[in-house]
Amino acid sequence: MNKFMKAAFNEAKKGLEEGGIPIGSVLVYKGKIIGKGRNRRVQKGSAILHSEMDALENAGRLSGTIYRESVLYTTLSPCSMCSGAILLYKIPKVIIGENKNFTGEEELLRSKGVIVEILHDPSSIEIMLNFIKKNPDLWNEDICI
Amino acid sequence: MNKFMKAAFNEAKKGLEEGGIPIGSVLVYKGKIIGKGRNRRVQKGSAILHSEMDALENAGRLSGTIYRESVLYTTLSPCSMCSGAILLYKIPKVIIGENKNFTGEEELLRSKGVIVEILHDPSSIEIMLNFIKKNPDLWNEDICI
Repeated sequence: MNKFMKAAFNEAKKGLEEGGIPIGSVLVYKGKIIGKGRNRRVQKGSAILHSEMDALENAGRLSGTIYRESVLYTTLSPCSMCSGAILLYKIPKVIIGENKNFTGEEELLRSKGVIVEILHDPSSIEIMLNFIKKNPDLWNEDICI
Repeated sequence: MNKFMKAAFNEAKKGLEEGGIPIGSVLVYKGKIIGKGRNRRVQKGSAILHSEMDALENAGRLSGTIYRESVLYTTLSPCSMCSGAILLYKIPKVIIGENKNFTGEEELLRSKGVIVEILHDPSSIEIMLNFIKKNPDLWNEDICI
């Protein structure tokens, strides 16, 4: 696994250990991780801390020039909220672990010029598949279905 | 001014008093405010707490049935991140104070079936106009331009 996707996956695993939804993300600038995050719905009682949002929050306030040269790695395809944040900050590239368990707004991102790559990573698929099987209500709450 | 927009505007004023960006929002369910928020970029060093996101976060974890009968009031037109959150939670109606100082993803929202109303509220216009004149760099950071 690519080292940055591995870091995102490690965040997902940490989330699972905490009793949370196992999705992780990292924001990478010039080959260095500047923000790590994981879904914190359970851990923080949060409605907005999807892993991508958590990574952006943990990266802190940054100038637009940083975002515009960054890459976001995330274990699961980003939902409309997280895709909107990617568009707000004009992050040009998103690497996605998997989109089998959930397919977010990849087409919207591509239509706005964002490069979107799907890795079809077996570990990312497995961790979510197992989680959704065991926690369907929690997962449905997270994506509001 | 409508009482819910007034509550959103009061959040914007609180934000200004705190040295923050004066944008406020409230989430309303069956005629009652269930979440209030204001932009907290400055106050919390946050990259994700736009006022709409802050209102959603302060409303806490909710079931989809609540969101689907709620109305979001916000003093300024919602950016792509906040519009994405509105779409994630399937909030059916958004009442916007003004879109003169910034026009967000109103068309995207409408294209997905969200009812979007613009009040062209003079107080909401004025507070942002004055803020942007005095703090152009901070405002540009918030919308990443």
